[in-house]
Amino acid sequence: MISKNQVKYLHSLRMGKFRDINRAFIAEGGKLIDDLITSKFTIHIIYGTPGWIDSHQRLIASEEYVIEEVTVQELEKISNLVTPTEVLAVVGYPEPVNPSPESMGKIILLLDRLQDPGNFGTIIRTADWFGISHIFCSTDTVDVYNPKVIQATMGSICRVNIHYTDIKDLLAGLPENWTKYGTLSEGENIYTANLEFPAAIMIGNESKGISEEYQSLLTRKIGIPSGSTKGAESLNASVAAGIICSEFSKRM
Amino acid sequence: MISKNQVKYLHSLRMGKFRDINRAFIAEGGKLIDDLITSKFTIHIIYGTPGWIDSHQRLIASEEYVIEEVTVQELEKISNLVTPTEVLAVVGYPEPVNPSPESMGKIILLLDRLQDPGNFGTIIRTADWFGISHIFCSTDTVDVYNPKVIQATMGSICRVNIHYTDIKDLLAGLPENWTKYGTLSEGENIYTANLEFPAAIMIGNESKGISEEYQSLLTRKIGIPSGSTKGAESLNASVAAGIICSEFSKRM
Repeated sequence: MISKNQVKYLHSLRMGKFRDINRAFIAEGGKLIDDLITSKFTIHIIYGTPGWIDSHQRLIASEEYVIEEVTVQELEKISNLVTPTEVLAVVGYPEPVNPSPESMGKIILLLDRLQDPGNFGTIIRTADWFGISHIFCSTDTVDVYNPKVIQATMGSICRVNIHYTDIKDLLAGLPENWTKYGTLSEGENIYTANLEFPAAIMIGNESKGISEEYQSLLTRKIGIPSGSTKGAESLNASVAAGIICSEFSKRM
Repeated sequence: MISKNQVKYLHSLRMGKFRDINRAFIAEGGKLIDDLITSKFTIHIIYGTPGWIDSHQRLIASEEYVIEEVTVQELEKISNLVTPTEVLAVVGYPEPVNPSPESMGKIILLLDRLQDPGNFGTIIRTADWFGISHIFCSTDTVDVYNPKVIQATMGSICRVNIHYTDIKDLLAGLPENWTKYGTLSEGENIYTANLEFPAAIMIGNESKGISEEYQSLLTRKIGIPSGSTKGAESLNASVAAGIICSEFSKRM
């Protein structure tokens, strides 16, 4: 049985303001919760249907987590999904970390004002696929703890570190051997460009691209050539990011 | 002034059943409507705000279209978007065409039960970017005239031909020189594979992949290697399709 106050608290976490106050966000779905359980994240509470509880007896026996059984109807009331699954958890924000450039691997992504939650979540998932562990976001990028971002990561939020930071300071602080790439439609053809590592790759806002302020700080501009002169004006941001990550990853 | 019956009709077009009965769908937004005006599609009626009407005086003077002025409040009532823009149109289904393999270009896409409207719209946009003109869908693929698909195409619906068909018949009917590719995680590494043209490339359902029935009809299976052994289980379907299209396009 879930109390009115619990429902109110869970609903408040749909808003960034209350997520920040409580330093907690909502995650849903069996696979995502399983991933979170084995991750660095702290889970405050898990609401599971009888079906989910049944299949997680060992977890319950371990008494490591606060787990509440809820009916399907109760889950519907607290879920952010159109089709709620079987489990929902309140998860604490991870402690911010400040990785050294040496520990970041050979590719990092920088996001300049990305706005669409689905795109952001998908980019996190893509980064995870290609073994990219750090994504740095301008402070006006969409909130990673927005439920739509979390769900679109399909669990990759557990493995990719997301940092909100001053992108100018970040770029200035990267050692000389890092190449700072920006993806721009008029950039050098990525298929033929000689890609250098370690690489910091900036992806711009969905409609406005990379701001001029940041463009002036980049070392190189790269783009994905279109196969048609009369086709789409641009690619979806997460698809463009996917193609860019693919090209860098395979030549690493 | 928009009548109650018009509102009712427009709301009915949110459902596939009524779209099919009326052979009409809804498109929204300045760029999309501009693209539709210069396309093969027949526009039944355009609802524009005073701002949109002002900037389309030549179109109105041409008297080629039925155009109704609506207030921003009226547009909000009929829009399918969270943030309605300035124009909405009712557009007729195009006449089905049956292209010959010779007229289809060197790459076609086949979709097996793709379910997410955003993914489908994004794949149409990606196809357009890479100059791919034909996408063939299994009959249980999400409806292309779903408003979310239309909006995600960002106008590419005007240039890419979408066909719903029996995929088995289609594969059987392709000439011998076509290679039938399927994208599967365990497939041959696409980065090193020798890709042959013309190419029919199948993309599977978001969670279930390509059905076994179709797998047996493919010539070759290709996949995108992961850069990490402990990363994401899979890529988002539209990102995977983007990387596949990129690889084929650049080697054509």
